[in-house]
Order: sequence, then C-alpha cells, then structure tokens
Amino acid sequence: MLGVCYYPEHWNEDRWETDARRMRELGISFVRIGEFAWSRLEPSRGNYDFAWLDRAMDVLTKAGLKIVLGTPTATPPKWLIDEYPDILPYDEQGRPRGFGSRRHYTFSSETWWRESARIVEAVAERYGEHPGLVGWQTDNEYGCHDTTLSWGPEDLKAFRRWLRLRYQSADQLNEAWGSVFWSMEVGSFDEVALPNLTVTESNPATRLDFWRFHSDQIAAYDKMQCEIIRKHSPDRWITHNFMGFVLDFDHFQVADNLDLASWDSYPIGFVEKFPFSEAERNRWAETSHPDIAPFHHDLYRAVGRGRFWVMEQQPGPVNWAPWNPIPKPGMVRLWTWEALAHGAEVVSYFRWRQAPFAQEQMHAGLNLPGLDELSPGGREAEQVAKEFAIVGTLPEVQKAKVAIVFDYQSYWTTKIQPQGKDFHYEELTFRWYESLRRLGMDIDFVRPGASLDGYALVVLPCATEISVDLERQLRRFDGVLLIGPRTGSRTRNFSIPDNLPPGPLADLTGHRVLQVSTLRPGLAQSVTGEAAGAAIRWREDIEASGDVLARFGDGMPAFTRNGKIHYLACWPDEALLTATMAQVLDAAGLAKFEVPDHVRLRRRGNLVFAFNYGEDDWQVPAGMRIVLGESNLRPYEVTVWQA
Amino acid sequence: MLGVCYYPEHWNEDRWETDARRMRELGISFVRIGEFAWSRLEPSRGNYDFAWLDRAMDVLTKAGLKIVLGTPTATPPKWLIDEYPDILPYDEQGRPRGFGSRRHYTFSSETWWRESARIVEAVAERYGEHPGLVGWQTDNEYGCHDTTLSWGPEDLKAFRRWLRLRYQSADQLNEAWGSVFWSMEVGSFDEVALPNLTVTESNPATRLDFWRFHSDQIAAYDKMQCEIIRKHSPDRWITHNFMGFVLDFDHFQVADNLDLASWDSYPIGFVEKFPFSEAERNRWAETSHPDIAPFHHDLYRAVGRGRFWVMEQQPGPVNWAPWNPIPKPGMVRLWTWEALAHGAEVVSYFRWRQAPFAQEQMHAGLNLPGLDELSPGGREAEQVAKEFAIVGTLPEVQKAKVAIVFDYQSYWTTKIQPQGKDFHYEELTFRWYESLRRLGMDIDFVRPGASLDGYALVVLPCATEISVDLERQLRRFDGVLLIGPRTGSRTRNFSIPDNLPPGPLADLTGHRVLQVSTLRPGLAQSVTGEAAGAAIRWREDIEASGDVLARFGDGMPAFTRNGKIHYLACWPDEALLTATMAQVLDAAGLAKFEVPDHVRLRRRGNLVFAFNYGEDDWQVPAGMRIVLGESNLRPYEVTVWQA
Amino acid sequence: MLGVCYYPEHWNEDRWETDARRMRELGISFVRIGEFAWSRLEPSRGNYDFAWLDRAMDVLTKAGLKIVLGTPTATPPKWLIDEYPDILPYDEQGRPRGFGSRRHYTFSSETWWRESARIVEAVAERYGEHPGLVGWQTDNEYGCHDTTLSWGPEDLKAFRRWLRLRYQSADQLNEAWGSVFWSMEVGSFDEVALPNLTVTESNPATRLDFWRFHSDQIAAYDKMQCEIIRKHSPDRWITHNFMGFVLDFDHFQVADNLDLASWDSYPIGFVEKFPFSEAERNRWAETSHPDIAPFHHDLYRAVGRGRFWVMEQQPGPVNWAPWNPIPKPGMVRLWTWEALAHGAEVVSYFRWRQAPFAQEQMHAGLNLPGLDELSPGGREAEQVAKEFAIVGTLPEVQKAKVAIVFDYQSYWTTKIQPQGKDFHYEELTFRWYESLRRLGMDIDFVRPGASLDGYALVVLPCATEISVDLERQLRRFDGVLLIGPRTGSRTRNFSIPDNLPPGPLADLTGHRVLQVSTLRPGLAQSVTGEAAGAAIRWREDIEASGDVLARFGDGMPAFTRNGKIHYLACWPDEALLTATMAQVLDAAGLAKFEVPDHVRLRRRGNLVFAFNYGEDDWQVPAGMRIVLGESNLRPYEVTVWQA
Repeated sequence: MLGVCYYPEHWNEDRWETDARRMRELGISFVRIGEFAWSRLEPSRGNYDFAWLDRAMDVLTKAGLKIVLGTPTATPPKWLIDEYPDILPYDEQGRPRGFGSRRHYTFSSETWWRESARIVEAVAERYGEHPGLVGWQTDNEYGCHDTTLSWGPEDLKAFRRWLRLRYQSADQLNEAWGSVFWSMEVGSFDEVALPNLTVTESNPATRLDFWRFHSDQIAAYDKMQCEIIRKHSPDRWITHNFMGFVLDFDHFQVADNLDLASWDSYPIGFVEKFPFSEAERNRWAETSHPDIAPFHHDLYRAVGRGRFWVMEQQPGPVNWAPWNPIPKPGMVRLWTWEALAHGAEVVSYFRWRQAPFAQEQMHAGLNLPGLDELSPGGREAEQVAKEFAIVGTLPEVQKAKVAIVFDYQSYWTTKIQPQGKDFHYEELTFRWYESLRRLGMDIDFVRPGASLDGYALVVLPCATEISVDLERQLRRFDGVLLIGPRTGSRTRNFSIPDNLPPGPLADLTGHRVLQVSTLRPGLAQSVTGEAAGAAIRWREDIEASGDVLARFGDGMPAFTRNGKIHYLACWPDEALLTATMAQVLDAAGLAKFEVPDHVRLRRRGNLVFAFNYGEDDWQVPAGMRIVLGESNLRPYEVTVWQA
Repeated sequence: MLGVCYYPEHWNEDRWETDARRMRELGISFVRIGEFAWSRLEPSRGNYDFAWLDRAMDVLTKAGLKIVLGTPTATPPKWLIDEYPDILPYDEQGRPRGFGSRRHYTFSSETWWRESARIVEAVAERYGEHPGLVGWQTDNEYGCHDTTLSWGPEDLKAFRRWLRLRYQSADQLNEAWGSVFWSMEVGSFDEVALPNLTVTESNPATRLDFWRFHSDQIAAYDKMQCEIIRKHSPDRWITHNFMGFVLDFDHFQVADNLDLASWDSYPIGFVEKFPFSEAERNRWAETSHPDIAPFHHDLYRAVGRGRFWVMEQQPGPVNWAPWNPIPKPGMVRLWTWEALAHGAEVVSYFRWRQAPFAQEQMHAGLNLPGLDELSPGGREAEQVAKEFAIVGTLPEVQKAKVAIVFDYQSYWTTKIQPQGKDFHYEELTFRWYESLRRLGMDIDFVRPGASLDGYALVVLPCATEISVDLERQLRRFDGVLLIGPRTGSRTRNFSIPDNLPPGPLADLTGHRVLQVSTLRPGLAQSVTGEAAGAAIRWREDIEASGDVLARFGDGMPAFTRNGKIHYLACWPDEALLTATMAQVLDAAGLAKFEVPDHVRLRRRGNLVFAFNYGEDDWQVPAGMRIVLGESNLRPYEVTVWQA
Repeated sequence: MLGVCYYPEHWNEDRWETDARRMRELGISFVRIGEFAWSRLEPSRGNYDFAWLDRAMDVLTKAGLKIVLGTPTATPPKWLIDEYPDILPYDEQGRPRGFGSRRHYTFSSETWWRESARIVEAVAERYGEHPGLVGWQTDNEYGCHDTTLSWGPEDLKAFRRWLRLRYQSADQLNEAWGSVFWSMEVGSFDEVALPNLTVTESNPATRLDFWRFHSDQIAAYDKMQCEIIRKHSPDRWITHNFMGFVLDFDHFQVADNLDLASWDSYPIGFVEKFPFSEAERNRWAETSHPDIAPFHHDLYRAVGRGRFWVMEQQPGPVNWAPWNPIPKPGMVRLWTWEALAHGAEVVSYFRWRQAPFAQEQMHAGLNLPGLDELSPGGREAEQVAKEFAIVGTLPEVQKAKVAIVFDYQSYWTTKIQPQGKDFHYEELTFRWYESLRRLGMDIDFVRPGASLDGYALVVLPCATEISVDLERQLRRFDGVLLIGPRTGSRTRNFSIPDNLPPGPLADLTGHRVLQVSTLRPGLAQSVTGEAAGAAIRWREDIEASGDVLARFGDGMPAFTRNGKIHYLACWPDEALLTATMAQVLDAAGLAKFEVPDHVRLRRRGNLVFAFNYGEDDWQVPAGMRIVLGESNLRPYEVTVWQA
C-alpha cells in the first residue's frame, strides 16, 4: 500500500480537494498530516484553531484517504519558547540551540513535558475518534539533528535525578564509575557535573550513563504521548517515524510503547552520512548502496515487532546532504518494491508536492514545486500503484534463518571509547549484514536479550555489555553462533570484566582477550587458515582453548571455534569477512547463493524479489515463474518470481 | 600614475622628509595616509591631537605628493570600546569579537554611528581644504575578516527595525518567508530571532534578508561618512578601498556614494583564498593566476562607473595567507602595468616601508623593514615609473564587446543554499571570465539591471533572482545572450517561482527546470552536440522549447538556444565551457584569439598589452609596432604594441 | 634501575602486599605514588585522611621499594572547585574548562596557589621524613592537554600584573609592542585585553608575552611547591615528570627548581602527535620512530643538568592516540635499554596494573587489567631486569661532540607567526637531530645561553631571538657552528631587528635576510653546490659576504660559510639536510658512521648500544666484544658491545 505526507497548512484551502483526488488517482491510500502545525493549531497561548484542520481532514476523508495524524511537538512555536526558554536544548559546547528550525527542545525540561502533554491532549481529544483517522505518529524523528543529548542546566538537574534513582548513594556512584581515578569522586549527587567541556576526556562511565539517561527520557516522553493518545483514541494504532542512522537512543525501548514502527528512508542522502569510502560514495551516489534501505527495513521490522511502515520515502533529490543527486530513473520504484519485499505494510512518500519555500524547497515531492503535475518520482510511484494489480496481495513475511543481534548501547559505548578512530559500530554491523546478503541470505535483526529460537545462524558483530538476558539467550541457543570483536568487553558500569573480555561468555567462546591493537588506515595484519584475508582497524591478542580456525601472521588466534560458537578477534577486511561468513553458513547448513555487489535478493513468502542497483544486467536463475519484470534484470529494475 | 600607502605615525618624525623625498624620486605621485590612526588623533575622549598629522601632511605636500586621507573608523581605540562595548561585533557562534586587531565594530550599533560621525567630522573639518589633499578614503576594507555580518543583540534590534520597514506586518513577513513551514511563524517583529545557532538549518529566506540588511547597513554607513566629508571637503573626491573577494555586501550599492572605486590587490594571497584546486594553487603560487587581478580590475571599473584605483598593490610576499611565497621577479612590475591596462588611474603600493613590528611585520613594502633601502618589489616599481616615459600617456579605456553580469546577491543566495557543497558563485563567474579571456576577449562587468546596450555578447553565469530592472534590460537587449544554471531560480522572497525556474525569463529562454542534481567530485555527466564535454557539480533536468544544441548522456537538453538566447543547464567542465563560449562568440560575430593558459591580452585604446604569467615564452603576432618589451614575451614580462 | 607507577587507592588494601612483593620479584626498585589522590587525602575541606597512605607506604617500604611521592595538585577535587570556581582554566574560545578529568586549574588563580600550598604543605609535613621516601614529584605533566595557556578573568588580571612589572608604563608597553599599528595603544595596564577572540590576528608581540607570562607562572608555581617540600623534606630530591612534546613552557626554567628532570615516554602515542607524514606514521606505527624517545632522553638530560629519569614508560598499547597499536614484541625492552643508554637513572613503567575502570582503562600496565598476571609488556620488563646482571653497572655518560641548542621560545614564536603553515620548530629541530644520528652521532642538547665549550660542532636549527647570553656564547665558541633559518629574526619585543635578521649575529654569519618565501607542499626550490638537494617550506633571500657553499636555482645563496660559521637559508629536504650535516661534520673533523633509517647507535662510556626499529637485520661491525645481544641485530632487538 502507498501513502504520502501532506501539509494542508502549506497550501491555499481551495487546492485541498484537487490534491486529495489526485492522490487517490495515483493509487495512494494513506496520508500523514499535522506533525509540524503547532503554530497554526495554537497561534498564541490557549488560542486553539482547529477549524482549518477539521476541514482538511474532512476533505481527505471524503476522498477516501486514511489519515495518520502527527502530534506537533517537533516544532514548538516561538511564543512558547519566548515564554519558557528552559525548553531549549544545549549543544555539547554549552550553548543553547535556538528557535528557527525544529526539534528545539530538551527532553529534560519539565516545562516541556507539561506543554507537550497539553497540546497532545488537545489534538487527541479533538481528533481521536475522527472517522478518517487510522493511526497516530508521535512527534517527528526523535534524535534527528543530534537532539538526543542535550547539555544544559535542565539536563544536569534531570541527570542528577536519574543517577539518584540508579545509584542510591554517592558512594555507590563513585564505586560504579571508578571515580577514585583522578580524584573525580563526588560527595553528593548535587556535585555531579555534565561530562562535557572537561580539560581532557571525561569518564566514559559517566558518558555512558548520560547517554542511557537521555535514551530513557525519550522512551518515557514517547510513552507519555502514547498514554494521552490512547485515552482519547483507543482504537487507533500509534507509531513513530524513526530517522535512519540515528542511533543515539534505543529504538527497541521506544517501540515498546508503539503498535508498529516506521522509519524515514532517504537512501541517497544516507550515502553521504554513512562512513563509506569516497570510492563507494561515488559508486552509489545515484542509487544508494544496495544494503542501506534493506538494513533499515530489517531493523525496523524488528523494532516494530514484525510491523513497520516506511513513513517517508525519498521520491527524488533531497536538500540536506552535501551533494544531492537525482536518483537514477527507476530507483524510486525499486525502493518502493524493496520496502514491500522486506515487509513494509505501507510506503509513504515524502512529500506530496515540493514546497517552493523555506528550508526544504529543494526537496523533491511527488509533484513539482507548487504545481499539480507529477514529478519524475511521482510517475514512478504511479507505476508501482499500477503494478500492485499484477502482483496481487503480498504473502506473509517469514522468519529468516539468519539473525543479527543489534545493540544500540554498543554504538554508544564504542563512540565514547573508540580506541581506534575508525571503529564504527554501525559500519561493522552493516558490513556483516552486507556480507551475508551478498551470499544470498535474508536476515532478521534481534534485540539483545530477545529469543534466538528457530535461527540456524546468529551473528553478534559486537555487543560490548553482555546483559543477563542476552547471556541467557546465548546459552540456550543451539544453532551456530558467530561473535565479533569487543563482545563482552565491558561490564554494566563500563569496566573491563574481572576475568577479562568476553566476561560472562568466556566459557562459551573459550577465549580471553589480553590486549588490543588498533590499526591506522593503510595497516593490515594478514590472517591465514580456514578463513583468510586480513585484519584492519582492530585486532585482539587472545588466548583460546577451542579450535583455532585461522591465525594472524604472528601465530596468534584470529578466528576460533568452541563447539558451535565462533569468535572473530578482529575487524575483518572484505576477503576475511566473506570467508568467515561462508564458514559459519556452512556450519549452519545454510546454502549460499552469491550475488554480484549491485544485486540483492529478498524473499517474502513464496515470492523472490531481485533488485539491480548497478549498471550491468543480471540473469534470474533459469526456469523461474516470473510475476513481475523480466528474467534479464536490467539496471535499476525489479524482477519478482515464485520460489 | 603610482601611489603608496604611508603611516607617518609608525616612524620617528625626523624620517618623514627623507621618506617623502625618496617617494618622489622613485616616481610616486600619491600617498594614502591616516586610515588606522584614531588612537593618535584622539588618544582619549575629546582630546584631539592633530598637530602631528598637520606636520606630516605639510611635509608630504611640500615634497610634491598628493594626499589621500583615510577616515580612521576601521580601528576604534580601546578607550572607546571600553566606554561602549555595544560597538563590538558578534560572530556566528554568538561570541563578541574583541579588541586587539581591527574592524571590531558592528554596523548595527547606534553608538558606533554616533562615534563614527564624530571622528569623521573632526578629521574632515580639519583637513577638508588642506592644499595637499586630493581625495578621501572612507574606513578600510569593509567586510574584511568576515565583518559584514554580525550576530549580537544590537544586530537583532537593527534587523527587526529593518524588517518592520520591509514587511510592515508580521503576517506579511510570515507569508514572504513561508514561516508556516515548521511552525516558524512570529506574532510580531519582536519575536524575530537571529538565524544562527539553530538546531538545524534556519530559513534561507531569513538568512537572505539578514544578508541584505547588513549590506544595506554598510551602504548607509558609508553614505553617512561621505555626507559629512562632502560638507567639509566639497571639492575632493571620495573612494573606498574594497578588498578582493569580499562579496558579503553589494559593492555597487556602496559605490553609489563614491566618486570612484578602489580595491586592494594581493594577487598571490588570493590564490590561497579562492577555491582553486591544489594543483592550480601550486601552479600559480608565485605569480598568481592570470585572471585573479584582471577579474577585479574589470569588476571595480564597473563598481566605480568607469573610474578605479588599485589602492593597495602587493609589492612582495605578504603575511596573511597560509603560505606566502615571494612573487617571481618581474611580477610586481607586471601587475602594475596590468592594472593600468585594465584602466586603473593609479596603482598605489601597500606599503612604503615594511613595518618591523606588529601583525603585518612579514608584509613586504617598497622598502626593507625599517630601512631607507628599496626592496626587490620597490625596485620593480621604480622601473615602472621610468617606463612611463617610454609608453607616454595611456589612451582612454573603451567599452568591451563582451559583458558579464555580476550579482552579489547570487553569491549570498548560493552560499545560503549551495545544494551541492562545491557550488561557488564566484568560481563559476571566474571560470566563465577565464574562458572568455583565454579566447582573447576584453570584458566589462555590468551591475544587474544596468543597461546592456552596445555589447555583442552578454553573459549571465548565474543570477538567482531576476529583478524587474534586470528583466527589462534582458528583454531590450538585442545581442547574443548566454545564461547559466540557477538563473531565475528564486523569487525576491527566496522561493521557487510559480512557473518553476527561470521564472520571469521562461518565455525568453524557452525552458523550465524540473529538478536538479548535484554531483560529488569525481562524478561527471557527458554532454555531446554542438558543444561537448561534461557537466560537473550541478546539472538540471529541463524541458526546452527552442533548439537543443547539446544533450546529456541520458538525452535530456544540456545547452539550448531560443533565438539569440542560450541557456547552459549545468556547471560545465573546462572542455564544455570552452566549446560553449566558442559557440556564443561565433554567434555574436566576435573573432576569437586563443592564448595559452599563462598568457593574457588586454586592450586599452589603441594599445594591446600582453602579460606572461608562466615559464614559457610567447610570441607576439608578427608585424606589430612594439611600444614596450619585446616580441618574444619572456616569463613574467610585459609587451605593449599598437593595435 | 627500574621503577613503576602505582595507585594503592585504586585497589583493595588486601592486594597491596602481593603487589609490592611481585614488584620486587620482577626487579623493580622504585615506586611512584600519590599524584592524583587528593580526593582520598582530603575528602572534604580540612578533613584529611592520611591513614590509608600511611599504610600503603609502610607496605611498600617493607617490601624494599623506594618511594617517589607526587603532590596531588593535578587533580583538585570537586568540593574545592565548587567552593572556588575561579580555579578553573579557560580555553582560547573563552569557555571555562570544567571539572571531570584533570589539570582543571589555571596557574593565574591566587586561590589556587593558596590551596596548592595548603595541600602540598600537609603532604610534605606528613611524609617528608618517611623512611621509604627517596624523592618527590611536583604535580603531574604541567601543560599536558593544552593547560599552559588559559584565557579567563584570572588570567587577564595576572597578565596585567606581569606586564606592569615588565614594562613599568603603558607608554613603554605600547612602544615595545608597536601598538600604534591599528590604533592598538592602551592608556593604562587596565586597558590591556587578552589576545584571543579578536576579529583577525592579534598582535604577535602580545601573544609572545602572554606565552612568556604563562611559562613564568609555571616556573614560579613549581618553585612554590619545591620550597614547601624542601622545608619539610630537606634530604629528598625533587623532580617533575614532563610530558613529551609539550613545549608550551620553558622546561629549562622549571627545572631550575628541581634536582633532576624526568619525562613520560609514550613512543607510539607520540607518532600520532608529531607532525609526521602519513607514510611515516604507518611505517613507525608499531615501534615508534627511532628518534622520538632518544630526542627526549637527550633533551631531558639537558633539562635535568645531566640527571633524568623516565618517570612513565609505555608498557604496551595506550588509550589516548587516534589509533593505539600494540608495540612490536621486544619494543618495551628496547625502549628501556635505550633510555638507559641515553643516561636515564631509572626507567619507571606506567603503570603496575591496567585499571579496568575510568578514562585509562585501555592503557596497558605491567599486569593485565585487574589481575596479578604479567602482561606481554610486563614480561619484557622482567627480562630487562634479568639482563642487568649480564651487563653490570653502566658507565658514566660522557659529553657528546655535537650539541643542538634547543629553544622553547622559538617554538612559541614560530607558532604565533608561522608565515608558512607547516613551519614547525619542533619538526625542524627533530629532523636535524635525526640527520645527525643517521650519521652516527651522539648528541647533547644545550639551553640557549649555556656554555658551548668542548663541543666540536654546535647546531642552532632556529633561534628566533638572540639573547645577550646566547650571543656571548656563540661569540666565544671556537668550534664549527651551523645556524638555521629564522635565527636572529626577532628582537626581544618580537620585532624584526634594525639591521634585518640575523640581527646581532650579522657580523658572525656574514649575511642579512632581505625577504622570505614560504612554499606550499609540492613546491620545492633546487639547491646545488657543495650541498645539494632542495629547499621546501621556507626559503630566504639573503645577501652573503662569506663563502657561498650552495645556491638556489635563481643563483641566490642557500648555504654559506663565514669562517667556521655556516648558515642554511632554508628548510632543507632530506637530501640537502644530509649533505649539509655531512659538510659540517667534516668541517668539525668528526667521523661519520652512517646507519640505516631503522637503526640507531648510542654510546655510554665504553659501551655502544645498537637498536633496531625495523624489519631488517643489521650487522654489528666485525670484531666487537659483545656484552648483550648478537652481532646480527634482529628486528626490535638490542645489541651492546664494548667500544
């Protein structure tokens, strides 16, 4: 199903009907509205104006569109900020981040919670039972523009409250943080300082708690909104639109409040944000890398406990990356089918019509700026809608055979303490995901501590802290397990475990880590054995009691096996990574199906989808019953067949 | 004619007479003084000390030198800043920019206007009728060191006043800026915030108005000084010394107050500031690029409505670039002749003698540091002075056949919204200028909206907003027109035109722009047809109703012609740019005369000047009557012949 | 002798005895403690707790260890900062640098001096006569983390006091600084502003004085601590542990207070901090460059007037560089022997056991994190201890034949005014040192103005100001002298000398500098003659009255000789540098012994030490009486023989 993001407040009211009709004609079923409209819903304190939104929702409903309504908390209006400047967030440099764009609030402000509750209540009360309404979106892209962490006086107050609950006494906090080091001990919680603007590095344990504190706040804030909405709108679902590659808070935790997850998919913009090499950025500039969107689809399917939407789908060039190329013709259609192949319930384009004004005026829409005329991307969306009739109802999504454990906290931990400047948790995980998909795998992501039952292979690229739940699941898991570097390297208090890494997993993996080497770009250490290649960036000196499958040039173990549990003691280069994955897939009895670097496969029920991100054709295996597309898969094309 | 910048206050009084005599002996006619001397003219509030300047001006006058006197407002003294800290400017990070160098004031401060008027009045009253005085310089290098924009409380106050005049009501401001987007609406002008330190990008329309506001302020501030000076010194001319590549305010607008323009020419320092590639920076490190100084000469000839000086000419290595090489022997002479060839009335060297103290102690002068002994650059100036006798009085400057429209606002607009990180308005314009000069053209710059009468070819590399005046001139122009990318892409309110770009020019050019692609370094899109090469950085998808002269690889129009009006829908690489220029020169019936990349020609009246910036000789066309130099133009040499 | 840094406060008291015993078993004689323990020594104001330290010192003493006790002033506790926030330093951006790491104080704070004196007195009184105590360390790594300079209100007050003493009157200050330039004159010392956050560059003379002021403050602060300690502990020596490549204050001046110098040797971490090329960083990533540690050993031998320790020796990977590789096996042993070869009295490892918590948890120790088990580095230390028996007592260190004058102020001067972005004083000096060592030389460093008697060759890579003392020593010196670029280029007041550079040395060198060229990377100017190669980065145009040994491509003198005094008028590339050194060594009658780039030699008494930093073997000259190691010097190995 298709949807679209729409801003009735941006257009003269006399255009709404045409817009709604043309949406339906294009094949759109869902429309998301309202999430930035606070200044129109409440132009000054207490002076609510719902009339225009009433009319807009009626027009849309009459046209047959189903409405998703956003709470407008991402954009508190100027009069509110002037009234309560304590709402503003602070950057790490200690400066207030001012009014004039969006997300100018800190989750730590008690004023902000009160004001948020007030506007959410007003909107939910008004529209909770509107016949056109099918669901809600809370706020917009939590954490986007680095707005998870804030470093102001309100944050310090709230952080101290959070610490008091966690540690009960200053002595326990000092003990947990190792504050005796450099005389950092505090006599009371009121002595705790923010971990920014210190002379040199601040305590990593403090920083991890600061990150957890903010993540907890987002989850609680979102829950507050959900509870108000549910009171007034008990029969509608609630989602939040997560922004891709924003990893500063725990999305699993926030989604505990939600009925389904959604995410905002800007495949080309992300090419500039992800730590790709310049060569890769050039290679994938006009298509995106073939795993960028799928990685997120699979992740948000997990975050949404099986249910997810793409709430915002890039429909052409965007405005916010350093460079913003037009996608290759066909890509908007390809991305749409791809999302559906990975289980998206709805793909909703951002936005109906390009706005000719303000910050996003260079962001494409399904229609040209200001006009009732489809853009190139709009015409591709129209094509997809027509193809729905050919393909028919999509089958249910099945559980994959391979799972990757994705851990937000490991991202925070390795950001706080990279030890090597290019150790990026998200890149490590992405490369492991990419490598498995190059070998033809479908992949599920799993929350740390969730059940691993039913998987043939589970991969843990890096889980710095082994929680009790995660340990329990790993111990009960009876399939093949591949564990990556730094796993188990930190306790809950950001210390090295007493028995050295991997801490509680030591008996499972049969190794311990003595010391760690981080390698500058250009340095590599060869690895030979049953998996061969080289270690780059990160390499551990380990002792191993199990089988040593591969060794570094100096003879130390690089890749080990203890029963079904494999450990890779380095950041692998592409060759070593592929060999490692081949090894564990074989061990798990999973058949590999290698695809070129520009082609990816994805199964949904009995359908197989193939996507071509490159300039070269690819041949579908012979004898398949093709449902959509051709057996010769041309550039930027999709082929679907029955398995 | 030659001039020099001199600081009597830097030297013991007993050296003034020798200095003046030696200036005359070298061949210098003009001397600029006084522009940084406030702390000596008024050592404490109201305690004026003109005696030393009286004596200095008398010494200089007696030696036969003509004096240009600068108002000392670029350097308010410490006692004044301590008395009124509201004079200080603020940087974009929100911090006051302190005392201790120069230009430490904001144009928004009412205190500053009052104090400026006071000192200007005092100086103008004292010296307005001095027999040695021929002209005035207001302040010094407006905008240098990023001092056009300021982000403090005084600026906010003044910006709100300016907006109130422009928009009359908050509703009209909201409408113009599209403030409904992200709930940025304000209820009154007092709610308007500075567009810095926002969470993400602030509204580009706000930023453009902020830039216009500051540009207006500079023009008004300069006018205030001019009016005071004219009251006391009605028979002298007034100029301002603009700094090369400072584009933050509209120089045409400021020059409306002035009798003639002048600019400060540091050809080698600019090599490090202009967005050249590293290869080009190395290539031109010791000579400058052969279009850097000429580009400015031609621009300031337009700014000065035909009249300009070089007020400060680099006479050797400077101190302020990341690297500061000694110019190749001959370059100081070459630059001097070049300025004259382009129409400069006077070339005034900065400075008479290298100061052995303070910030610019590594900046060469015509004399060695502290000594009465010519520097290598000084000896080259001496040579030029002697050559005046050979060449004789220079003929009048004629109007060129080719004009480039130069638009400061387009620089601001594309800085505010580059869309591709390497879209630099000044570079685009420079490359088009360079390409035309490589084909032997003389060039005039034209202010947007000024008459285009009499040109065979007019080039508009990029004019984002088409003002009513510019549109009128383009419609009446009957020569060949070449228009570049992004032209007409924004309304006065920084919106996309209702009919898409090029907005009001759509019927002239016969195209409209559907979407835009920006390309990372390394990406290029081939262009073939009557002009061939590649698009880099920026490429538009357009619909064209006229002739398509060249197409992109995907078949879309790249270069079009509608009658005599040509449109280039991309940033061209060198090959495409040359081919495009050749095409329009041919269309305009202008004969091309191609020169190597290190040689440039310039005509003045019946004289042709050739300049060699490279290491290889160049042969003057056979049979010319040579006035200066040789027919074999050696490296770093000048040859002049009669056309 | 070996030592170790130990933190009893980091471990349960019941582990102290085992730790002490195991230290002795490994062969350790000295233990440094206490330097970060303020929060344990005084948990709240006036509430001293010495009991734990009493017990710790008794345990260590009983085990036979000799104690070095650090004053805890590098880490003022939180209660003190909360009580007196004026203790905090400010960064150059004008922001207070907060509590939460270390060195969070400014030397300008009077409160801080009072509080420092109080805690030092308390500790010195308590332990001054402790039987296990052999010496004191003041504070920890002055200047580390850019803590020499501070830019807050306390600093401004103290700077004005310092200036009043230096200049007596505002007029003299204005005269010295050339404040007439840009109207920077002040009417009183109360008008002096900090030289940061100015609109453009602030006065270099001001900045140099600001640097001198802070350097003076550190020396005075250290002296204050020393005087208190000596009062209570008259029979123990005092040192300070200087941090490698911290050059922001004059270490010679601080060491005037001390009995011996010590420094903290992190050879691999420094590879990332020193301005090496990326190729060199990769080459030496796992061993360090073979001159990094020796350069410091030789420098601190001078700073300590012949006596120095390595107070902290890297024992494995560290945590604070962008990348932190494990040293190649053998390097910890190699570095230890190397320090001893260069004259270190004690090599003390940092630290006994890796801390599993807080900021340095990834910093190796002699024992694994939290465990009583030697790390790989710990086992190498153990090996060295055993080898002491083989080698026996080391002979006395002799004076070298070659000396390099090392001048901290020249580092400040060239930082303040680089003129070319890559002019790094420390790199120039380092390259000259490297070149001499590649030719087999042992080297002494000499403080500017100290006696040069007895050296055959003295090298002055760059001494910007020629003090009266330095001039006197140069005039009396009768050996061969090599002087490098920029020498004598500034007076005491940061002006160019009246007679041009080299100012007071003009008659000695027989040259003067007319102008200077700085060259971007990629530019070079060939040099030919008795020394050939190229100038990079910096090149002077000089007039020379003596012999011209080599010339630039344009014929100007590049390398000159006036009697025994040589002058090199550029930054030499490697070829030119080697040829220059060969020339002056020959002139001095010193025999060269060339070694490959990965091998270095060092003589101590009758012993010759050879160290192999590379992957290739090296052969010891035939016929030597080998004391340790083998005649085939393998990678990362040491060989010692009798000369």
